Amino acid sequence: MNGTGRLIGVGTGPGDPELLTLKAVRALGEADVVAHFAKRGNNGNARRTVDGHLRPDVIELPLLYPVTIEIEKDHDAYKAAILRFYEESAAMVEGHLAAGRTVAVLSEGDPLFYGSYMHLHVRLAQRFPTEVIPGVTAMSGCWSQAGLPIVQGDDVLTVLPGTMDEKELARRLADTQAAVIMKIGRNLPKIRRAVEAAGRLEGAVYVERGTMENTASMPLAGRQDSPAPYFSIVLVPGWDARP
Amino acid sequence: MNGTGRLIGVGTGPGDPELLTLKAVRALGEADVVAHFAKRGNNGNARRTVDGHLRPDVIELPLLYPVTIEIEKDHDAYKAAILRFYEESAAMVEGHLAAGRTVAVLSEGDPLFYGSYMHLHVRLAQRFPTEVIPGVTAMSGCWSQAGLPIVQGDDVLTVLPGTMDEKELARRLADTQAAVIMKIGRNLPKIRRAVEAAGRLEGAVYVERGTMENTASMPLAGRQDSPAPYFSIVLVPGWDARP
Repeated sequence: MNGTGRLIGVGTGPGDPELLTLKAVRALGEADVVAHFAKRGNNGNARRTVDGHLRPDVIELPLLYPVTIEIEKDHDAYKAAILRFYEESAAMVEGHLAAGRTVAVLSEGDPLFYGSYMHLHVRLAQRFPTEVIPGVTAMSGCWSQAGLPIVQGDDVLTVLPGTMDEKELARRLADTQAAVIMKIGRNLPKIRRAVEAAGRLEGAVYVERGTMENTASMPLAGRQDSPAPYFSIVLVPGWDARP
Repeated sequence: MNGTGRLIGVGTGPGDPELLTLKAVRALGEADVVAHFAKRGNNGNARRTVDGHLRPDVIELPLLYPVTIEIEKDHDAYKAAILRFYEESAAMVEGHLAAGRTVAVLSEGDPLFYGSYMHLHVRLAQRFPTEVIPGVTAMSGCWSQAGLPIVQGDDVLTVLPGTMDEKELARRLADTQAAVIMKIGRNLPKIRRAVEAAGRLEGAVYVERGTMENTASMPLAGRQDSPAPYFSIVLVPGWDARP
């Protein structure tokens, strides 16, 4: 080995291992090191998705988020811990790159679309040869699973975080043909009120664990108020003027 | 063969044939009939992407858009011709399904995300066993090609058609963290003015033919005013508060 290695952000898709791309499979088979972000005690969904595609002698580099249960997310101590974690993760990956190893970083869905890989990309892509292999997003997996046409023609699509203030969410929902709402969790009752306030409850669909084995989808109107799992999404379809 | 066949919407991704998913490759190898929408004299990008993955005895069903050069797009005669075309296309696919054949319909990018496949889906999915295999979208292909982190955390992403009125485009660009503008073509000068009016020209990137062989990307500010090719996109990245 000589020279520096390559950094590859690999999109692993929405969950179904068959939704890996041919390019992702090739990159995984060529990588010296495979890194992935995960919570302690939970190997992460991206890692499960690539089982069987890694080299037998691959170096695995799990990047474990610091345990921060006792700190509020907008607290300065939390922000400092997360920043330190990203810096340390980038330094570990950089060590392998500098030693000439090709490092594939797994990313659920699509790497540059809300992916943790982005935290390594902005720290390393300027200094090492870098490639990003796009993946099927969770939202594509969800509307495909539900068989729900989402946008067509000149439709505007808005992707919104469910953490948003209820009034602001309703305002944005009333100002778009189609919407995808992520980060559902405990926000579900609020999200449903906002969708209803925007006059869009009819047709809105709730999908959990899209493309995974234990997936489910139902009208948002009929979903109970209990917290939604991490992999869940609300879809508000567009395409009113279908011919 | 007995019973009815299956309808499968197959996302073929943004252009690079390696960005097909394993699931798409399997479905293509199992399909009795492969249908794709195309303009006359142009086999279509989705069809090129799947070369080498079809059965030798596959029945090919190109669905050729009617020639409508002489009619304006918002004219009733155009709408009637297109409606008739979708009805006839659905009837042809239905004939194969009723005969027990599995029909894979190719769709550039992701089938239910602005894809022509949707016109068949809404006409047939209620009556035949149907599966939609999601694909990597053109926009994911473009921001990955450009190595451009597009959204993170609680960012709002808005997908906009470049056909939109300039003031309305500027209003929406000022009201989102990140944006993707499609349908560039002759709208490029107008789009650039709208991006600038929204204070977002710095950082905005123009990408053409993302993931294809002859791809190019550059700052939107530096792109000349000449019409953009069909496969082009403008990206306005979010993630201001990166740690």
